[in-house]
Order: sequence, then structure tokens, then C-alpha cells
Amino acid sequence: MTTLLQSHIAGRWLGATPAQTLRSAVNGRPVAATHAEAIDFGEAVHFARTVGLPGLLALDFQQRAARLKALAKYLVERKEQLYAVSAHTGATRADSWIDIEGGTGTLFAYASAGSNELPSGNLVHEGPALNLGKTGRFGGTHILVPRGGLAVHINAFNFPVWGLLEKFAPSFLAGMPCIGKPATATSYLTEALARLIETSGILPAGALQLVIGGTGDLLDRLDGRDVVTFTGSADTAAKLRVHPNVVRHSIPFNAEADSLNCAILAPEVTPDDAEFDLFVKEVAREMTVKAGQKCTAIRRAIVPRRHLDAVAEALRARLAKTVIGDPAVEGVRMGALASHAQVADVAEKIARLREAAEVVHDGSAGFAPLGEGVGEGAFLAPMLLRARNPLGDDTVHAVEAFGPVSTLMAYEDLDEALTLAAKGQGSLVGTLVTKDPAVAAKVIPVAAALHGRLHILDAEAAPESTGHGSPLPLLKHGGPGRAGGGEELGGIRAVHHYLQRCAVQGSPTMLAAVTGEYVRGAKRIETEIHPFRRHFEDLQIGESLLTHRRTVGEADIVAFGGISGDYFYMHFDEVAAKDSPFGKRIAHGYFVLSAAAGLFVSPAPGPVLANYGLDTLRFVKPVGIGDTIQARLTAKRKIDRQKVDAQGRGQGVVAWDVEVTNQLGELVASYDILTLVAKRG
Amino acid sequence: MTTLLQSHIAGRWLGATPAQTLRSAVNGRPVAATHAEAIDFGEAVHFARTVGLPGLLALDFQQRAARLKALAKYLVERKEQLYAVSAHTGATRADSWIDIEGGTGTLFAYASAGSNELPSGNLVHEGPALNLGKTGRFGGTHILVPRGGLAVHINAFNFPVWGLLEKFAPSFLAGMPCIGKPATATSYLTEALARLIETSGILPAGALQLVIGGTGDLLDRLDGRDVVTFTGSADTAAKLRVHPNVVRHSIPFNAEADSLNCAILAPEVTPDDAEFDLFVKEVAREMTVKAGQKCTAIRRAIVPRRHLDAVAEALRARLAKTVIGDPAVEGVRMGALASHAQVADVAEKIARLREAAEVVHDGSAGFAPLGEGVGEGAFLAPMLLRARNPLGDDTVHAVEAFGPVSTLMAYEDLDEALTLAAKGQGSLVGTLVTKDPAVAAKVIPVAAALHGRLHILDAEAAPESTGHGSPLPLLKHGGPGRAGGGEELGGIRAVHHYLQRCAVQGSPTMLAAVTGEYVRGAKRIETEIHPFRRHFEDLQIGESLLTHRRTVGEADIVAFGGISGDYFYMHFDEVAAKDSPFGKRIAHGYFVLSAAAGLFVSPAPGPVLANYGLDTLRFVKPVGIGDTIQARLTAKRKIDRQKVDAQGRGQGVVAWDVEVTNQLGELVASYDILTLVAKRG
Repeated sequence: MTTLLQSHIAGRWLGATPAQTLRSAVNGRPVAATHAEAIDFGEAVHFARTVGLPGLLALDFQQRAARLKALAKYLVERKEQLYAVSAHTGATRADSWIDIEGGTGTLFAYASAGSNELPSGNLVHEGPALNLGKTGRFGGTHILVPRGGLAVHINAFNFPVWGLLEKFAPSFLAGMPCIGKPATATSYLTEALARLIETSGILPAGALQLVIGGTGDLLDRLDGRDVVTFTGSADTAAKLRVHPNVVRHSIPFNAEADSLNCAILAPEVTPDDAEFDLFVKEVAREMTVKAGQKCTAIRRAIVPRRHLDAVAEALRARLAKTVIGDPAVEGVRMGALASHAQVADVAEKIARLREAAEVVHDGSAGFAPLGEGVGEGAFLAPMLLRARNPLGDDTVHAVEAFGPVSTLMAYEDLDEALTLAAKGQGSLVGTLVTKDPAVAAKVIPVAAALHGRLHILDAEAAPESTGHGSPLPLLKHGGPGRAGGGEELGGIRAVHHYLQRCAVQGSPTMLAAVTGEYVRGAKRIETEIHPFRRHFEDLQIGESLLTHRRTVGEADIVAFGGISGDYFYMHFDEVAAKDSPFGKRIAHGYFVLSAAAGLFVSPAPGPVLANYGLDTLRFVKPVGIGDTIQARLTAKRKIDRQKVDAQGRGQGVVAWDVEVTNQLGELVASYDILTLVAKRG
Repeated sequence: MTTLLQSHIAGRWLGATPAQTLRSAVNGRPVAATHAEAIDFGEAVHFARTVGLPGLLALDFQQRAARLKALAKYLVERKEQLYAVSAHTGATRADSWIDIEGGTGTLFAYASAGSNELPSGNLVHEGPALNLGKTGRFGGTHILVPRGGLAVHINAFNFPVWGLLEKFAPSFLAGMPCIGKPATATSYLTEALARLIETSGILPAGALQLVIGGTGDLLDRLDGRDVVTFTGSADTAAKLRVHPNVVRHSIPFNAEADSLNCAILAPEVTPDDAEFDLFVKEVAREMTVKAGQKCTAIRRAIVPRRHLDAVAEALRARLAKTVIGDPAVEGVRMGALASHAQVADVAEKIARLREAAEVVHDGSAGFAPLGEGVGEGAFLAPMLLRARNPLGDDTVHAVEAFGPVSTLMAYEDLDEALTLAAKGQGSLVGTLVTKDPAVAAKVIPVAAALHGRLHILDAEAAPESTGHGSPLPLLKHGGPGRAGGGEELGGIRAVHHYLQRCAVQGSPTMLAAVTGEYVRGAKRIETEIHPFRRHFEDLQIGESLLTHRRTVGEADIVAFGGISGDYFYMHFDEVAAKDSPFGKRIAHGYFVLSAAAGLFVSPAPGPVLANYGLDTLRFVKPVGIGDTIQARLTAKRKIDRQKVDAQGRGQGVVAWDVEVTNQLGELVASYDILTLVAKRG
């Protein structure tokens, strides 16, 4: 089969004339062809701005999260279509799983994080609001809003599905239309993904455009509202970063570049330990998964000098057993590189590495990949090296062979291991295999300065570990220095990268109007109706209840001690309490909390279904015997999670601001309570 | 007086031969001279890395915060020395206040934020830790650690004191040695500041080096651990951003550039409103404070067309009354520009603006600044313009005259006002003057996409407003697009910019060892001693108490209702409770909380001085009649704030993880409690 790949621009599939032929990595047969027709990037950008953006912002965070979930489900149901195409890239089923189900898993994760952590609407209040004056009439806070621009995602060849989806998910949640540009070599798989997405009809028009081929003058058409992300080589990252238009408009440029990631075997681990085997297995796995074509793969295995031979021997044995060939053949564990160009590039890098390292294992002797037609495939045997002088010769820390290649290097003590690790000058990820928490406590904070992610492996974690090489949606991906200095994923952090943070100053009433959240000091709404008796839709932010009062007597303290069992001296021991900071017996803090609930509760069944939590409780002043307390309850924040309960009734989350004061009007306790409130309809 | 300015490099003051003469902005007399001797930037960087960095990291966040506070106090006591030097820059006392006391105020603010919000040690745990497996043996979290590099701060001429201190404070807190490079024109004031700091002896050696003159090959000597910040023109920012070494090492580059900030007068405000006068006053103030030499000054005043004449007239009257001259002369309200070069630059920009705008007020007719020798000073009269075609001609949105110059532009409706504001293509700050919260709610979220800070001014906020032009330490400073795309200040956010974020994965025990915080699932320490009976120094993270149990009976619910007054149907109404999601009467959540406290309290006086708060309480499962609860209390986090109580006794903060479970071992409530714990010594 040869598919003519098409770009998807301005709502149309574009391309009718084949240009470059893309070949199967397994057997060299043509798989697809790029199109010869030029893309009008002016049209693409215009479409993103005029159709994509309004369509995305017609939805809110919660609705976009729901769309992501629907899309993830849709793709999972059709994943075999993607696996079929993915086979041409040289990937085994396990390799494709990382790409395809790693991609859909990322969509699910962002759908869930968006639903749980983002508000309704299109504005994130990054509070709390701060009082900036003396009388509370002027305050400040921060908001995060959609940037009003588009995101250009330029991706690498090794993850045609995950690579696009992991960037698309947070930028879509943030309300940015995307233009995705996959690496040409494997763009047939990304195109297959884009066709599925398009056919699903789940996304608003213009939410995702696809570029097959080069980016032409796309970057010249962007401005300061837009964002560019890039995954690939450090050289290309450096070129794109200084693009004059990107620089002129201070366009955020997020780079994620290959790096020379390391794994360190801790000094206390001996060949008899389970951790020794874990180390060997992890290094071998990272060399062979995706045929080592992962920007997170372990390129440098740093081991105690006294165990270097044992590690080398164990790795040699393991690598020798790795069955390589057409992934369609039963038993094959490692497939092909993505293209012959990659094979040539890796071979050249191996040659350079061999100037500074000896060969420990060279799988190319008698190398015969399994399968039909594999002679034309882009196969390469694993190669394990051993650095001659890793402290003195930086070649092994700087030359990256982007394939099944890794270099062993010996260290004397932990400080030397850290020095070797640092010679990578910034990495995406590192692994420390250790049995000893004290070693982790020493190594990790130092290594963290030069890593985006660190993975600690021991026998306890191993059965559940997701592995050195796997970025996870809820953890940051991206490292400093050579790794590009970018930051992706990490849960909602990644969404924030696509939003614009703005400080806002003004009166509390103005801040409340802008943020959609009640801010203390803002105008409140006081009616005859208890706010707990209002349905979710009817309740307005700022609706407030000032309760009746209650005088706290000694009997309250005694009774509360009896029911709780809390006989702390501060409440019961007149003698010791005199010497305490308060100088007298005071009421239990939890009594104040409970009595406040008694003051504002509305006992009969009503829309408030449950009080499921409480945040940032502070006991500001003690309540003594004879003090009179009063509570103010104000609707602070509403989130419409668009969920229904078991009975099919809609409900939303309402956070309430609670201030408990004493007879002098002084604040004694302050907190937020979290409730589920039923909808009317 | 003519001072020979010296650089402070590698612990020595350097320079003996005068080079460039720097002159008073007020009267042109020589004030100081730069030094001719070349700086060895290799030595400076080496000193920062080998002396500065270890010295800073020998302290922790809390200790560095304490140093900042001491430094702020020291400088405030000697501020008149700085005011005396500042007069040469052309600044009035009020202008100098912004620079000098704005600078020390920023030190105080960061000392306080550091003390309150940063932990002990040199690692920030950005939790919570996440469970990444099925059985809780593998998790992930994020840490922020010192980058292990240095910060180069390149500053503008207009804030010689604040400009350095606002960048120094967060980078110092983060544990980065700094090299400060002030703009040469006013470097004599920064040098005076640096001498005070050096003399104070408060900072560790190498914490701050000062460069008088150019940066030479400094940027070539940096790597991925370092950070460069820049404040100044967009052109220079663009040049520095593409410095090959900065790009090669992905060195974070934070730019804060001049922008064409706007103020919008909302459509509902009429000349009879207090807000009308506030608008006029704010525009006039921003034109004349620091003679308009603020990157935050209002360059574009956007007003309803029907009120344009009234605004123009009111501004004209106000500007005509502004007394200009030597700030030493009584009654002078506006001083000189920083140099003749600035005067020439502003004059050229005014000429360009006049191609697109008419003159509304030109103070230069009969312009005669007050004072002696002012003929040689760098004075410039205020100039108010009115754009002819602000929607069609972008000159007024793109040409910035960095002096007492502003342009009025008319709009028809709010959308047009927003369009005009957006034509600035990214600004540091904007002001909206409105009476109407609904207008603020409409304008601010849209304008926020292109602004770093937005200031809402009304009659309520005005008496306490810090004004359009003033960045505040706790609010973000820096805007997108033309404003450079950087982010400074904003409280602890700014410290995070100088730290490296790293995701960490491993078993809970490993995560606890690395973060210094108890993570659920980590190994606990159980001894015979109740953890509440341990002094701060003795208590170890992970010390834990599993309490006795308690069966919750109906009598508990009844008694708790009586003492709290909380007769919610879920606890008391058998009939209604049957129809609730739980299907039966359940205990009050606050009873569970109170009973848990009763389970783990240690009643006699001891090291735990107070429970001052509680965070992230979640009621995970209901507790029904007959359920038996049990609590586990584990020391989670310790912060040594290095504070003492009124009696001079030391104390620290301890956060405790609390898990309340039922007879099936299911979690029913989960929260952190916050306590003050006395020190032994």
C-alpha cells in the first residue's frame, strides 16, 4: 500500500500529488508519500485565529476536558488501526503501545486533571487575593487566561502519536488551536491519527491542523500570543529558538531535546542484590525498546569500578539474547530504526564514541534480523561500549548515538558518580538504582539540578515502576541545558504553560467580579434565603449569611472534652494554662469549628448534599470562656464539573468562605468548606 | 565630587584609572567616572562558582531569608546616603523613594515571603506526592532545588537601586550568587548601593559581584546551570536572547522590556465622576514621575470619544502646573531625564509620533526649569499628543518615547478600546478606570492575555492604590510580546524561576528520604514515646502514633449535635437520611475530626504548644453508627523558622499527617494538622 498523505489545513485535506516516498523501516517497501502541493500558512494561521480560537473559547475548561475524554475513548476503540500503521515504523507491539496507548493515556490523564483541577469558565484564579492596603480597599491577585493565540507543535519521528497528543492535550485544555507538524519520516502514522480525530467530529473546527512536510513561513506568521514547542535534536532546537520572528515577539519556545541520560548503580549494591539485576535489566531495556530511539534512553551507565566487569558481563549476556527483526515475527523483541538515514547517523556516532570507548558487546557479528525482506530494513545491532577515561574525555558525555547504544563508565565514589552524571550538561531523566534511602537523599537533590526527572529504582518499587524511559502525564518532562531547558507535562502545570498569567489589582469587589470568586471585603449579597437552600444554578458568588451568635461557656469546654476525649491542658488545666502563651483556659479549636457549623447549618434536606472537605483552616485567635462567637458564610467559588450523581441528578462543587469572629469583631477562625450542591434541573 | 567607580569582582574592588565621565542629569557636572581596567570575567565566574555558591548553599532558605531582612534593615538605616547620590540622576525625592525604598521594601517582602513560605533546607517539595502504581509501592512527586549556577542581572538606567535588588532578592533566596551589571549612565548609584552591601558584611562572600562598564565575554562563560535576566529595551533584549552561548546551553533568559502601556477610561465614567479625575491624575502622574522614564509608564491613554476633549483639557491644565527643575529646589515635582542622550532619543521619538498625532500640550514653549546650572541639565518638558487614526496607524502603538510623553486615543465602544489596547502587542501593565464591576469583568480577562499586570482604579480603591506604574514584590512583573515575555517578582514564584524543578519517582520511602517529608506508604518510626512529647530538634520525620480505637455510637451523634447545635438531617433524621446518598444516619464529620484529636492528644503540658491550623481535610467515607475509628498521626514536615516566642524559647513548625480509618481499615478522613513545637534548647 502507498498512501498519499495529506495536510489538514483550514478544515480541508490538502494534497493530490505525491512528492517524497516514505518507506517501511522493516523492509524498505514504500508506505506513503508526502504531497507536493504547497501549504498556504497564512490561511492556516488565519483559520486557527478566526475559526479555531473562537470555537475553543466557546467551550470552557470543563467542557474541553470532557471533549478530551471523549476523544481518548474514541481513539482507544480504534487503536488497532494505529497499531497496523505503526508496524511500518519498525516498532514492536510493545514499542507501539508506548506511542499509541501512551498517547491516549495522556489524553485521559489530562481530561481527568482538567475536570478535577480546573474551574468552570476560561479563567483560572491563582489566588489567594492579597490585601495591599491598610483598610482592605485595595488588593491584588493573579489570574491565568487563554493567550488568545495558537500553538505550533513541531515533533520528532520517534513518537508519531504520543508526541502530538502529549502537547495537544494541555494546549487544547488551555484553549489554544494547534498546528501539528510531525517529522516527515513517520508522518504517515500521525496523519492516520489526525484522520481518526477529524472523523470523530469531537473537536471544534480548527482545533487541530496538520502539516505534512516542512513548516515553510509558518513561524514568520506568529506573534506574541502564540506558543511554539519543539521536540528533536539540540541543533534544530537552537536554530528555531533564534528564529527572528520568534525572538521579535518573545514567542514562548519550549524545547525538549535529546540528552545523554544516565543510570547510576549505587555503591552499596552488589551482584548478589536484586537491585543489581534491576539495573542490568533497565539498561538493556532502554537500549532495545524502540531500538533505543528515545530521547529518554539511558546512554551512560555509571557503575562502581569494582562491579564494572560484572555489569558488563550481565549486560552482554542479556543483549546477546535479544531477538531482533520484523516485529510481526513471533518472539522478536527489538525492531528496526525508523529509517536508513537514522542507521547511518547512529553508525557515524558509534564511530566517534569508539575513539573514547572500547566495545563491550557488538551485536553486529553475524547479525541476522528475523523476517522477510528485512535486508532492506533499517536494522542495527545493539552496541555496548565502555568509556576509557570518562572523567577526562567528554566524548562519551557529548556524542549521542540515537539507537541501541549505551556506554558503561566506572566511578570510584558517589561524588565521582555525580560528577560523571553532571558531564551530560543537562538531561531529561536519570535513574539511580539503590537500596539505601540515605544514598537517594544524597544523590537526588544534587542530580536534580541537571535533570528534568529522576527515577529511583529498588526492589520495593520495581514491580510497579513505570521505568526510566517513560515520561508520565502527571510528572514534568523536559530537562535543563542540553535537554533544551523546556518543561512539558507535569499535570496542570503544562496547561499553565499555554495560559498567560496576569496580576490584577483593585478593590475586593472588582477582584471578585474579575476572578468570579468571592474575595473578602467585596460586596456581599444578603437575602432572606439561607444560601444553603439555593440550588447550584441559582446560587450567586457572594451570597452570604451572617449567623446568630453563641456565647462560649465553661460548660461547652467540659462537654466538648467529654464527647471528643480531648482533655488537653490548655482547655482543662487552670494551673498549666496560666503559664501557656494564652494565659488562661481556652475552648478547643474543633469546638469553635463545630459550633460554627451549628450556627450556619440548615438542618432540613436541601440542595447541599454533603460537606466533603475543608481547606486552609487557621485558628487566628483563641476563644476564651465568656467569648461570644458568630460566623459568616459566603459563597466563594462554584465549579460545574458536569457530573451527575447515582440518581442522575446534576450537582456542582461550591466552596464557601467561613469567618468566625468574636464579640469584638476579631477573626478567631478562618477556612473554606467544600460542598456538593444539587442542581435544580 | 567625582567618584572613581569600581567593579567588585572576586572579593576585590577593581579599578584605579578613570575612563568614561558620568555627569549629573541636573546640571551636567561630573559625578563619577567608570574605570578603564578590564574585568577578568573568567575570574568573576570562577569566584561565583567556587566561593559564592558554596557560601550561599551553606545557608538554607530560612537563613538566607534572615540575611535579606538584616540587609534590608541595614540599608534603610543608611538610606540617606543613597538619596544623596540619587539626586544626580535627576530624580525628585519621590522618584528616589520609588527606587531606594521600593528596593529595600522588596528585600523586606522577600525576607518575609521566604521565611513564611519556604522550608528549612535547600529543597522545596512541590507536592503532593502521587501514587503511580496499584499497591502504593511506586510514586512520584516534584522537587525544586538550587540550580548550582549563578545569575547575571543586567539592568536599566532608570532604577539603579530597585532594579538590582528586585532581582537579587529572589535569586539570593534561591541560592544563586549574582553578578549585577547596572546601566552605565547611573551606575554610580548602584555602586554606592553595592558598597553599602559589601560593608555590611551580611552576605556571604561572592553572593554579589558588581560590574561597572560592559559585560565583555561574561555571557560566553555561562552554562545551563546559570540564569540571565535583562531589563531594558526590546532591541537589546532581542540581541542578548540570541547570544550563541545562551542558546547553546538553553540558559534561561528573562527579559523585561519597555512597552507601550495603556490606561483605559471606561465608557460609563463621565467628567462628573470621581473616577474621571482619578484617570486624569493617574495619566499625568505617570507622565511626570521619574520624568516618564519608567518601563511601566502610561504611553497610551484610551478614552471614550465623547470625553476626549474633556480629558485633554483636564490633562493640559494639570501638566501646565507641573513644576520642573532641580529636585533640590523647593516645590519641584518633576526632575531631569537621566542623560542628554535620553533627551535626544525622546525628542526623536516625539518627532516620529507627531507624524501620527497632534500636539495637545507641549510644555516646551517658554520651558525654564528651576534651579542653578540647569541649562546643562537633561530636562525635557512634558508632551501630550492625540492620535489622529489610532485604529489605522500603528505608529502610536509602536513608537515609545521614554520620557514625559503620552498619547490620547479615542474609542467608540469597549471592543474598540480592547482592540486599541491590544495594538501594543504585549505590555507590562495596563489600567482600567471604571465604576462598574461588570465592565472590569468584561475587560480584564481579555486584556490579561496581553498584559503582565492590570490595575483597576475606582473611587473605592483609589485611597489605597499603589498606582499604575508600581510593580509590587508580591505581584508578577513582566509582560508578553513586546514587553519581553519575562516574569519577575510575584512572591515566591520569582524564587522558583531561579530553582530547577525535577520530577522524582520511587518508592514512598525513597521519596520521603529525598523530600524530607513523610509520604504515605513510606517506612514509619514507631517508638514508645508519643511524638507530641518530642521536642522540635528530637522529632524525626516519620515518627508515628497509631492510636487506640473508638466505636461511634448513636449517643455520640446525639451528644455532638447537642454541643455543636448541628442538627443536620443526615445525622438526626432517620427518614430523610435513608434517601440520602449514604442511605443512613452518619456521624458529623467534625465529630470524627474531634474524636480523632481525642485519640491522639497528649493532655499534659509538653513541647506541642498549639495546633494553629489544618489543611486539605477530606471526608473520604462516612462513619456510621457502630463503626469503630482509629487515627494514625505521623510527623510529616518540619520547618525551622528560627523564631523565638515571647519568653525567648525557640520553636518550629511541625505538620502532621493524620489518617482516620474505620474497622475495615478504610480511610474515612485525611488531613494535615499544623502545630508549633518547642525546641529543647
